[in-house]
Amino acid sequence: MNEVLKSLLERRSCRKYRPDPVPKELLDQVLEAGTYAATGMGKQSPIMIAVTDRETRDRLSRMNAAVMGSDQDPFYGAPAVIVVLADRNIPTYLYDGSLVMGNLLNAAHALGLGSCWIHRAKEEFDSEEGKALLRSLGIHGDWEGIGHCILGYADGPCRPAAERKANYICRV
Amino acid sequence: MNEVLKSLLERRSCRKYRPDPVPKELLDQVLEAGTYAATGMGKQSPIMIAVTDRETRDRLSRMNAAVMGSDQDPFYGAPAVIVVLADRNIPTYLYDGSLVMGNLLNAAHALGLGSCWIHRAKEEFDSEEGKALLRSLGIHGDWEGIGHCILGYADGPCRPAAERKANYICRV
Repeated sequence: MNEVLKSLLERRSCRKYRPDPVPKELLDQVLEAGTYAATGMGKQSPIMIAVTDRETRDRLSRMNAAVMGSDQDPFYGAPAVIVVLADRNIPTYLYDGSLVMGNLLNAAHALGLGSCWIHRAKEEFDSEEGKALLRSLGIHGDWEGIGHCILGYADGPCRPAAERKANYICRV
Repeated sequence: MNEVLKSLLERRSCRKYRPDPVPKELLDQVLEAGTYAATGMGKQSPIMIAVTDRETRDRLSRMNAAVMGSDQDPFYGAPAVIVVLADRNIPTYLYDGSLVMGNLLNAAHALGLGSCWIHRAKEEFDSEEGKALLRSLGIHGDWEGIGHCILGYADGPCRPAAERKANYICRV
């Protein structure tokens, strides 16, 4: 079977991580794959914030948990987080940012890393604390949080894929 | 270089197609890759309509062109179109549908097919004609058009990738 197809089919969402850091050379490859996602009119409306600094990672975790009124770590212990945001002024921004997320997830799997899309990035970066965090990183503009791609080494095997729904595909 | 990473980096949007049909075994593999995209809470909120019937393909083309007041073929002559829609009742539907689109685009490239995301699926399937088309296919519910993945054999080489923007990635 085609290696790429195999990888797309075998990627799973990972919800348990070892604390080992993500090697920089792997993180760089995942990020590069993100930049090559298709974007509407080639406008490259998204940006990525690659977070490996523990304090910032934990701060994001706390902010994310707060959105759902929890104090657990919504990042499942993953040591690295790539936040994808996209420019609200570009009509396709939400689709564009999602395609970046997809490339990150698929690239991570291809490199032997576990990953998972964690939502609530919109609420997180619409908050005053989120906006202040962006400013502190020198990021100015009208950015909407699209998602978090958490990254790390899976602690144990992922669950097998659920069955695909029967009516996923219609042909005409 | 990792084969999967290479494929993610080399995928391009194709805007010129030969009329040759997409072999069924390749279309099936592309569709299968779509079904394995991650979805929020594993809810599998999207559906795909794989269109190879010429009349239906041309009808979609006309509807899509009408959204932008054009009478050109927005599908660039591609013989096959996969329409992705997603269930508006599921909060992550727009992100989920976009990830399906991403897997379709990446799978197509891996199999030697050209592809491109064509927008305006939302407007197309919010129209009375679009809703009637869904009903005629036995598709009932609250579906929003996410995108069209046009598919076929590229007629000539694709344009090389534009340079990635300088500030795509921020690290912390």
